[in-house]
Amino acid sequence: MDARSTCPIACTLDLIGDRWTLLIIRDMMFFKKQRFEEFLDSPESISTNILSDRLRKLEELNLIEKQPYSTHSRRMDYQLTEKGNSLRPVLRSMIKWGLANLPETSIRVN
Amino acid sequence: MDARSTCPIACTLDLIGDRWTLLIIRDMMFFKKQRFEEFLDSPESISTNILSDRLRKLEELNLIEKQPYSTHSRRMDYQLTEKGNSLRPVLRSMIKWGLANLPETSIRVN
Repeated sequence: MDARSTCPIACTLDLIGDRWTLLIIRDMMFFKKQRFEEFLDSPESISTNILSDRLRKLEELNLIEKQPYSTHSRRMDYQLTEKGNSLRPVLRSMIKWGLANLPETSIRVN
Repeated sequence: MDARSTCPIACTLDLIGDRWTLLIIRDMMFFKKQRFEEFLDSPESISTNILSDRLRKLEELNLIEKQPYSTHSRRMDYQLTEKGNSLRPVLRSMIKWGLANLPETSIRVN
């Protein structure tokens, strides 16, 4: 994808500026989810086609990596790379802003 | 808009999780832009219809406010509200991540 500018905010938004990508990263980062079915199970009800698309893009961007669940399975485990994990301060800043400014939000424990 | 969940990340993304909204906020926050034409002039070349749409939504969300440029003009000045300004840590975290992880990015001074 061609960059719109050299602005670090614009370029970051080109990678994660959509309604779904950071939710997958959230699930890996804070809820330790690793499998396709686990992401589907989140309360926002992501669709399978969007989930497949975003997982593929995240892997292309080297933000996540996948590996076979076991030698006897074609199922995949997805995990954050170091680069993916380095998004933690971005997610934390959104958690803090959301909790402070959006009264309907709360921290969920599951 | 119905919330997808009570997650503060999901709810924040419902407001600012698109490719353009935070660029308008960036222009106000870091480049002191206030007018429609100034936003159009940014390097990402936002279109007039997307800009109009996002300004309207940002105003509805109470993240920005507008006022007439002067008593003799129908032109509007747009400014961040306190709530809009409180997004500063979110933008800062993206600047930091982008600069650290996306080699094509740099800080522009204009």
